[in-house]
Amino acid sequence: MAATQAKLSKTAGKPIHCRAAVARKAGEPLVIEEVIVAPPKSCEVRIKIICTSLCHSDVTFWKLKDFPGCFPRILGHEAFGIVESVGENVQDLKEGDSVIPIFLPDCTECLDCTSKKSNNCSKFQFKVSPWILRDGTSRFTTVDGETLYHCLFVSSFAEYTVVDIANVTKIDPRVPPNRACLFSCGVSTGVGAALKTANVEQGSTVVIFGLGGIGLAVAEGSRICGASRIIGVDINTDKFEIGKQFGVTDFVNSNSHEDKPISQVINEMTNGGADYCFECVGMGTLVQEAYACCRKGWGKTIVVGVDKPGAILTFKSFDILHMGKTIMGSLFGGLKPKSDIPLLVKRYLDKELELDKFVTHEVSFQDINKAFDLLVEGKSLRCVIWMDK
Amino acid sequence: MAATQAKLSKTAGKPIHCRAAVARKAGEPLVIEEVIVAPPKSCEVRIKIICTSLCHSDVTFWKLKDFPGCFPRILGHEAFGIVESVGENVQDLKEGDSVIPIFLPDCTECLDCTSKKSNNCSKFQFKVSPWILRDGTSRFTTVDGETLYHCLFVSSFAEYTVVDIANVTKIDPRVPPNRACLFSCGVSTGVGAALKTANVEQGSTVVIFGLGGIGLAVAEGSRICGASRIIGVDINTDKFEIGKQFGVTDFVNSNSHEDKPISQVINEMTNGGADYCFECVGMGTLVQEAYACCRKGWGKTIVVGVDKPGAILTFKSFDILHMGKTIMGSLFGGLKPKSDIPLLVKRYLDKELELDKFVTHEVSFQDINKAFDLLVEGKSLRCVIWMDK
Repeated sequence: MAATQAKLSKTAGKPIHCRAAVARKAGEPLVIEEVIVAPPKSCEVRIKIICTSLCHSDVTFWKLKDFPGCFPRILGHEAFGIVESVGENVQDLKEGDSVIPIFLPDCTECLDCTSKKSNNCSKFQFKVSPWILRDGTSRFTTVDGETLYHCLFVSSFAEYTVVDIANVTKIDPRVPPNRACLFSCGVSTGVGAALKTANVEQGSTVVIFGLGGIGLAVAEGSRICGASRIIGVDINTDKFEIGKQFGVTDFVNSNSHEDKPISQVINEMTNGGADYCFECVGMGTLVQEAYACCRKGWGKTIVVGVDKPGAILTFKSFDILHMGKTIMGSLFGGLKPKSDIPLLVKRYLDKELELDKFVTHEVSFQDINKAFDLLVEGKSLRCVIWMDK
Repeated sequence: MAATQAKLSKTAGKPIHCRAAVARKAGEPLVIEEVIVAPPKSCEVRIKIICTSLCHSDVTFWKLKDFPGCFPRILGHEAFGIVESVGENVQDLKEGDSVIPIFLPDCTECLDCTSKKSNNCSKFQFKVSPWILRDGTSRFTTVDGETLYHCLFVSSFAEYTVVDIANVTKIDPRVPPNRACLFSCGVSTGVGAALKTANVEQGSTVVIFGLGGIGLAVAEGSRICGASRIIGVDINTDKFEIGKQFGVTDFVNSNSHEDKPISQVINEMTNGGADYCFECVGMGTLVQEAYACCRKGWGKTIVVGVDKPGAILTFKSFDILHMGKTIMGSLFGGLKPKSDIPLLVKRYLDKELELDKFVTHEVSFQDINKAFDLLVEGKSLRCVIWMDK
């Protein structure tokens, strides 16, 4: 059946010439070039990208001179698109399907993917910024034959991309493209961290360290769960006004309390600590502050931010043993891409999960570097980049 | 009513002269002496100790020259006894009640004690080896008027002791004294760590680092939960035969694998890690090994062993974020003394929880130093000391 479907597409089985924004050098503006996208191989689909949004991890990989930085490369991993054609051995996807690519694989078959408890696929182990597809090759070349590397198995800064089926989730076509793309990474990560990893209880107190896109998504998730108090911690005071839209009730400027640790400020505000503390910046010292202002007896510290490679977290053995607090990480919000994303989408369609407020900017593909500027300058939460504009 | 009951006892309201085993110097044999036990003050009860058992923490405090070591002192915190008299403001206990003292307070009123999630009382905060009662004084003196210090709010190495009502739990009198005393500390801690803190799932794989009394109690708890594989890790190979009685199915001698870390041995045995790893020794490096052989996606590392004061645990930030593993501590097995102990007792009376195998030795009070020798030499699990023999 897959083969029959593939024949329906005029371009199926043939290389596609299209535009892509290529990162040629660390930190330098992307260059829009004509590229050639090879047809999908076995267990792959080729997707026509409709729109993509910019996540902080793209900026991180764009800036990195050394591994896992890698050039020339097509970045981008939050997107919405339509399946253009499918490779061999593709059963569940067909030409015309509305899909989002997701960096985290979900093979649907291994012990982890068949377990309700894990989203950490064993067949395709999680890697930091992979630059090729699983057969060890790239589907992108320039018209001169130069290989262009992938990013996170997605590479959505191109009009067409090829993605392994383990990294593709179907999405209800009623979701507008510029909202659908948000489910690919950051928003799902933050909302999932509150809803699934922490399972925030109604009436509880939440602290969020870092009110960037992911921190605000944690706030949105906590709001949905019925948290009665959501304390945002950031060095940028503008974030409080923005945070209010996401349910943040209190704001702590971590630069305004040099006389005492932030954990002490929070402990005083909450009469002994918060029920849930989310670290969304990626700084070991902040994880320790989060742990220190987690309520004894039941507090959970949830690590969401990505720290530097090799970073170490330290805790006092006495505290771990005696305080009754839990430390856990939240990769992609603990969500299983193929089974949990449809549940989040339902919450969006039911007007429970609010996504409009995440999209602060929209630009055309040719202005993709503006999206980088806006995010680097802290002016945007999510900037949607439309491929056909 | 409490006052009426108190009048029923001939000794109520009067000091009692009786025998106690006094620790006079770190590491030196206890001395059986005549001591004077003052009547209970407000919110206290005086208990006639029937039998007591020796826990590793007693040995630890006995050996400690410096704080929290303290001399002269009456050690002992696992016991069964009968309430001899009650002080003022005691509502729920009366003369003649069968009770066990528990080092962990349960005031029944604070936010933690009224919450199902915590066993970490806020009214009476947990302290490492307190040596006086809560009013700042001791109830013990020698016949010469010398003050003798308490231990862990219990001090059961005496024919009578005075305990705060927050540290007393009533126990079904059908439980024999030499089984009832086991619920006071070690056995409950280990069984609770599996049953309550970790909530071990049926069919799961458990690793226990350290097969002492607490480690074997974790095995017993895991067996009750229906774990299909219980791997014991110890340097003493004799522990495997003993462990089998407690449900241990596999044994790893940590001294026999110098070519690779124990976590790697376990990862190979379990095809990627165990569902639950309990550290019952109190060594930071073992906690890290436990974490390293916890199954990605859902594994839980539970810290049960008490490390040196000031000990630090380190983890890689990447592992915590990406591996989906949880780190938690288990103080007194996560059990709430007054509400959870009766549930464990019911499991014992229903012949589900097996206690006989924990009691390897029984001695008379005058031979209490033998109990120390047996435990220090690794020959006993629990040695019950009978006060009237």
